[in-house]
Amino acid sequence: MPRYHLTIEYDGGPFSGWQRQANGPSVQEALERAAEKLDEAKVAVHGAGRTDAGVHALGQAAHIDLRKDLPADTVRDAINHHLRPDPVAIIEAGRVSDDFHARFSATARHYLYRIIVRRAPLALERGKAWRIAGPLDAAAMHDAAQVLTGKHDFTTFRDALCQADSPVRTLDAISVEAAEAEVRIRCSARSFLHRQVRSITGSLVEVGLGKWTRADLKAALEARDRTACGPVAPPDGLYLLRVDYRSESPVVA
Amino acid sequence: MPRYHLTIEYDGGPFSGWQRQANGPSVQEALERAAEKLDEAKVAVHGAGRTDAGVHALGQAAHIDLRKDLPADTVRDAINHHLRPDPVAIIEAGRVSDDFHARFSATARHYLYRIIVRRAPLALERGKAWRIAGPLDAAAMHDAAQVLTGKHDFTTFRDALCQADSPVRTLDAISVEAAEAEVRIRCSARSFLHRQVRSITGSLVEVGLGKWTRADLKAALEARDRTACGPVAPPDGLYLLRVDYRSESPVVA
Repeated sequence: MPRYHLTIEYDGGPFSGWQRQANGPSVQEALERAAEKLDEAKVAVHGAGRTDAGVHALGQAAHIDLRKDLPADTVRDAINHHLRPDPVAIIEAGRVSDDFHARFSATARHYLYRIIVRRAPLALERGKAWRIAGPLDAAAMHDAAQVLTGKHDFTTFRDALCQADSPVRTLDAISVEAAEAEVRIRCSARSFLHRQVRSITGSLVEVGLGKWTRADLKAALEARDRTACGPVAPPDGLYLLRVDYRSESPVVA
Repeated sequence: MPRYHLTIEYDGGPFSGWQRQANGPSVQEALERAAEKLDEAKVAVHGAGRTDAGVHALGQAAHIDLRKDLPADTVRDAINHHLRPDPVAIIEAGRVSDDFHARFSATARHYLYRIIVRRAPLALERGKAWRIAGPLDAAAMHDAAQVLTGKHDFTTFRDALCQADSPVRTLDAISVEAAEAEVRIRCSARSFLHRQVRSITGSLVEVGLGKWTRADLKAALEARDRTACGPVAPPDGLYLLRVDYRSESPVVA
């Protein structure tokens, strides 16, 4: 069966998360339903990773095996057609070899967290960013964030229900940039723990508000204690930006 | 009665337009209802201009007279509180003198039209931009657009139902810029005709697709004939960016 690598955009707002579940609609289920209409058979969609309810994706990755041998562009367009009206879209589809696995072949994941600093509630960006009255010191946030880079036990910054075997992860890069009224946090790692980016973001906002220092953030990390974490940021501002694979282009045909 | 100048953001998606009407919710009605809860009296919201169903605003302007004499920030916060859950927010409120009128004192209006060029449907930006498979030649669009600047009879580019006394308007500036997959059209004028920006945008897209030349756009303008207009662009991509007034800041208190 031909395997296809899909790059997926979605608005997480109306979904209970990426993963198929009994209660509530999931992105995975929407994709499987659409792919099944195309393939006229059961289709399993294997994602690069889960996202929580309300979390968005600009470039989630997944793979599917189809019975039908179709050009990748046809697969993209047909699944997009069957996805309507769900706010999920295949941005790109490519044929890949059988040893490609969206989850296990991934070499890096990149997340963006958007904060809008203003007093008024969000009208146009509602559900798409975290609004904070602020002010936020983005430079202080960026400086403090650097204590998190490298290999650490991130127990403080993972959800109590995180199912990963180990709390140790390597954070390759984290940056905090301000542009007009928006503060953008970007994180890159091979893999992340459950709610790691939102936990880090919430603690960095404590730094931005002047409640925490860089030393406080370092102490929280070193405590390896979930109760040392700042308030967890809401899902609204979180975007799975991109998933990387070994070769620049996993497309084989 | 104290007069307040309001700067307003809204998502036009759920509304039948700015103006209060019998059928369907309007932004004006949402604002009046919220202001009346604050003032415990009838309040009329006078906008700088109407926007059609589905058209958004980042900086619509309006004025209101209240019985209560309140600090402008209190007016902003209280109206925002009462606006929930409508996707409308007062970004700024300021006290102005009695001769300030949101519509008649305005010296310029600025609009933005967002086009996203890609094959896949929009998931995250649905209703917030016009998706076109493209490709679009933004440089050709910008070049052609310059034939529209200055004082012209814009009969070709106004809705057949436009109620303005005269089809003559002065387009102060128009620009077309491309950034990644997005093409942004910006227009500035003292005032616009009904559907003028969407009519111009639709015709410029014909240029961008290579179907029209700069000369074709000029001929369409000079035809002064509504049937010479290209397909009118959908409301989704249109944003009222800002309304200017004579003094930099109309705030008096």
